Amino acid sequence: MGKEIATREQDYSQWYNDLVIKGQLADYSAVRGCMVIKPYGYALWENMRDVLDRKFKDTGHQNAYFPLFVPKSLFEAEEKNAEGFAKECAVVTHYRLKSDESRPGKLMVDPEAKLEEELVVRPTSEAIIWSTYKDWIQSYRDLPILVNQWANVVRWEMRTRLFLRTTEFLWQEGHTAHATKEEAIVETKQMLEVYADFVENWMALPVIKGIKTANERFAGAEDTYCIEAMMQDGKALQAGTSHFLGQNFAKAFDVKFSDKENKLDYVWATSWGVSTRLIGALVMAHSDDDGLILPPKIAPIQVVIVPIYKGDEQKAQIDEKVHAIIKGLKTLGITVKYDDSDNQRPGWKFAEYELKGVPVRLAIGARDLQNNVVEVARRDTKEKQSVSLDGIEDYIKNLLEEIQQNIYNRALAFRDDHISSADTWDEFVQILDTKAGFVSAHWDGSSETEDKIKELAKATIRCIPLDNPLEEGKCIFSGNPSTQRVLFARAY
Amino acid sequence: MGKEIATREQDYSQWYNDLVIKGQLADYSAVRGCMVIKPYGYALWENMRDVLDRKFKDTGHQNAYFPLFVPKSLFEAEEKNAEGFAKECAVVTHYRLKSDESRPGKLMVDPEAKLEEELVVRPTSEAIIWSTYKDWIQSYRDLPILVNQWANVVRWEMRTRLFLRTTEFLWQEGHTAHATKEEAIVETKQMLEVYADFVENWMALPVIKGIKTANERFAGAEDTYCIEAMMQDGKALQAGTSHFLGQNFAKAFDVKFSDKENKLDYVWATSWGVSTRLIGALVMAHSDDDGLILPPKIAPIQVVIVPIYKGDEQKAQIDEKVHAIIKGLKTLGITVKYDDSDNQRPGWKFAEYELKGVPVRLAIGARDLQNNVVEVARRDTKEKQSVSLDGIEDYIKNLLEEIQQNIYNRALAFRDDHISSADTWDEFVQILDTKAGFVSAHWDGSSETEDKIKELAKATIRCIPLDNPLEEGKCIFSGNPSTQRVLFARAY
Repeated sequence: MGKEIATREQDYSQWYNDLVIKGQLADYSAVRGCMVIKPYGYALWENMRDVLDRKFKDTGHQNAYFPLFVPKSLFEAEEKNAEGFAKECAVVTHYRLKSDESRPGKLMVDPEAKLEEELVVRPTSEAIIWSTYKDWIQSYRDLPILVNQWANVVRWEMRTRLFLRTTEFLWQEGHTAHATKEEAIVETKQMLEVYADFVENWMALPVIKGIKTANERFAGAEDTYCIEAMMQDGKALQAGTSHFLGQNFAKAFDVKFSDKENKLDYVWATSWGVSTRLIGALVMAHSDDDGLILPPKIAPIQVVIVPIYKGDEQKAQIDEKVHAIIKGLKTLGITVKYDDSDNQRPGWKFAEYELKGVPVRLAIGARDLQNNVVEVARRDTKEKQSVSLDGIEDYIKNLLEEIQQNIYNRALAFRDDHISSADTWDEFVQILDTKAGFVSAHWDGSSETEDKIKELAKATIRCIPLDNPLEEGKCIFSGNPSTQRVLFARAY
Repeated sequence: MGKEIATREQDYSQWYNDLVIKGQLADYSAVRGCMVIKPYGYALWENMRDVLDRKFKDTGHQNAYFPLFVPKSLFEAEEKNAEGFAKECAVVTHYRLKSDESRPGKLMVDPEAKLEEELVVRPTSEAIIWSTYKDWIQSYRDLPILVNQWANVVRWEMRTRLFLRTTEFLWQEGHTAHATKEEAIVETKQMLEVYADFVENWMALPVIKGIKTANERFAGAEDTYCIEAMMQDGKALQAGTSHFLGQNFAKAFDVKFSDKENKLDYVWATSWGVSTRLIGALVMAHSDDDGLILPPKIAPIQVVIVPIYKGDEQKAQIDEKVHAIIKGLKTLGITVKYDDSDNQRPGWKFAEYELKGVPVRLAIGARDLQNNVVEVARRDTKEKQSVSLDGIEDYIKNLLEEIQQNIYNRALAFRDDHISSADTWDEFVQILDTKAGFVSAHWDGSSETEDKIKELAKATIRCIPLDNPLEEGKCIFSGNPSTQRVLFARAY
């Protein structure tokens, strides 16, 4: 019955892969490092995208679309950005294939169709977008530009994992242009709040908002704000970033505007993005050894109904009742699937929908009908209950809200349980090796120390939390004076 | 006042470009043949996409996502398909850039990062998808697969035009798998109907449904169904295609299923797509010399309101009324923009929104308020009318419907006026050269004749209309016997 999945304790990494693949979210593809997002996984992404898209529009942004390709000369214009991404760029060098005369029926790259200038497949779009903004911006009247793009990007990663790190992934990237530094910083922080709100209140995943150190900053940014989430193995996962880009891209692409006094200045920029990586975070943070646990607010199927019957007559009676329930649920905006396929037994279906993380399952049989009840099983706690059919729709609506809250609370309790303080190096390493989680520790503020810690403890500074209290102390590594603790963790 | 655009009579092609660029739909980019879809154009695409997506889901399809890249060995597996697209493939050959030591600050393709197997940037996804379906399909229970993908594709075109023919474009591609030939054909035809319904009833553009000749068929298809629309210069534009692929891709990728009797057979396939090209069709079919004319059902802004006032007091009074109107319109699901920006005069705004094709414009001044009226201008006919503010919301709702219908009727009348019959070669050429439009003429059914006609008259067979009446006649070119007329036209 059901499909075998590894347990978290046996093999956490295999457990994750099993959930993604057997839970029908995604699969490996014939292309190295690229995945196929299957319909169930894509439906989840659509739900996430729709919520985010609404939030972007509510904060005044519009969508647009820029080219997939970036000519090399544009790509290299902002040097830090180019340097940061150069090692992971897929490069188009030719624009035609031709018959390979030595191998009938096969094709070869046509050497005569070599591009004069190579095209980089976008790993991120600052370069192509800022080269465009140059044409859009002359005066302060053209600002702000508040644009977002939903797109695929390619980063040639050496080690890939479904959703968490794939060569191609889907994301959104906001790219805004402003007349003042202050306005750009407000935008950067606003979008961080949008992300935090989405991840906490839709994905049911608590996050810590913070700012990255120089080492961990986006290539080309002045400041990178981030939200960091904790997975069940105690590792950190960066769930979204919002960058204050200063005037770096405006200078690289010579984008100036004249202000009200007709004075020319470079434009201020932000960029911000989240990706299909969030699905990886969702899977790792909430699921259990029986499968996925999806938060009701973004689950592709919120309720599944499984009939239990013998013979057509019972089936017809159940159908009638179920159709009434479905109608009621749909009126409440609840997504419901009636699985009355006759090629699998109820037990198999139960396991299947548990694996797929459907928040609520209803099972209804002939005797239930007589007693005017239905069996309601919730995925998060696996509790089952017999519930009266009268008012079942409202019961389920409330239950979905309760499940959403419970999943969040559970993740929050786990997260808070796994934030430790360390005051010495030994303590620091011991926590990472045994308890895992985030470690709050003093750091002397130098990149060298940060590098050393990364090398020795495999932990990075995830962020300097926003509103971090100042506190005098000594760096756990160098012993040099420090003014605040920062959050370290091993990370995805 | 306003922006200069060419007239259709002066320069039809320039007129089109002016509308696209000055109407803020799209612009050229720094990448050869690729465009930037600007926020206004993208909002239009989003509206089109959302309607289509709903129709796909209502007919049982789910979205998924497959890799951007196709390894060359997979790409060449279905030979006809590969041959058809080989000449327009962007090819990734390397996966890394490095510093160019001869040019400080510049990058070069790292010769050590050459791929063992080149990757084709998808021009269409049959190959990558059918190589995946092989893993998804074992038994008839796994069928049908009804999947759609929204994606970007790349075809290296030598001559490009905004929306109509760009190197990269956005589209959807449905890829379905079936147990029987009959079911696949039903699917192919169903999706043609979905496209026709969308283009006629949302885009207000009449189409002729038909089937392509062998010459014009999709590379790798057994049959290509299409919808053909007519532009204002009489040229045809293929607005959507739906392909019955037979077992060609199943054979190329060895995708078999066992039926109920446990017999193995190859799977039957369809694919179907429409793209951002539809936006080009929309622009060319409906617009006039003052700008775009967008059908209300997909217009990003359905109603624009422009205040006409002197001083803050008048403005405040108008604002109050306008906010009430906006609220009423939004309740009716109408998208409205209030343009009370103070850096342009009303006349400039009028011209701007005419250029952008906003279906209805309201202008409201102090005197209008006193008289409890508003000036309503419709974009399609440019008629203006003073309308009572009482019940203005319902008036506008009805007006939007009337405009939608009127735009359709106008395009239909033009189209029907421009379908001619020709019985001789001279007549045929003369119609194409003078009146333009579609020419219904006899053809002997041979590819050679079709090629010759294309060469000599620059016209192609757009389609053999569905339900075409049989009629004996003689081929206009060869004089050989023919059993039916087909539709010829010069085409985009």
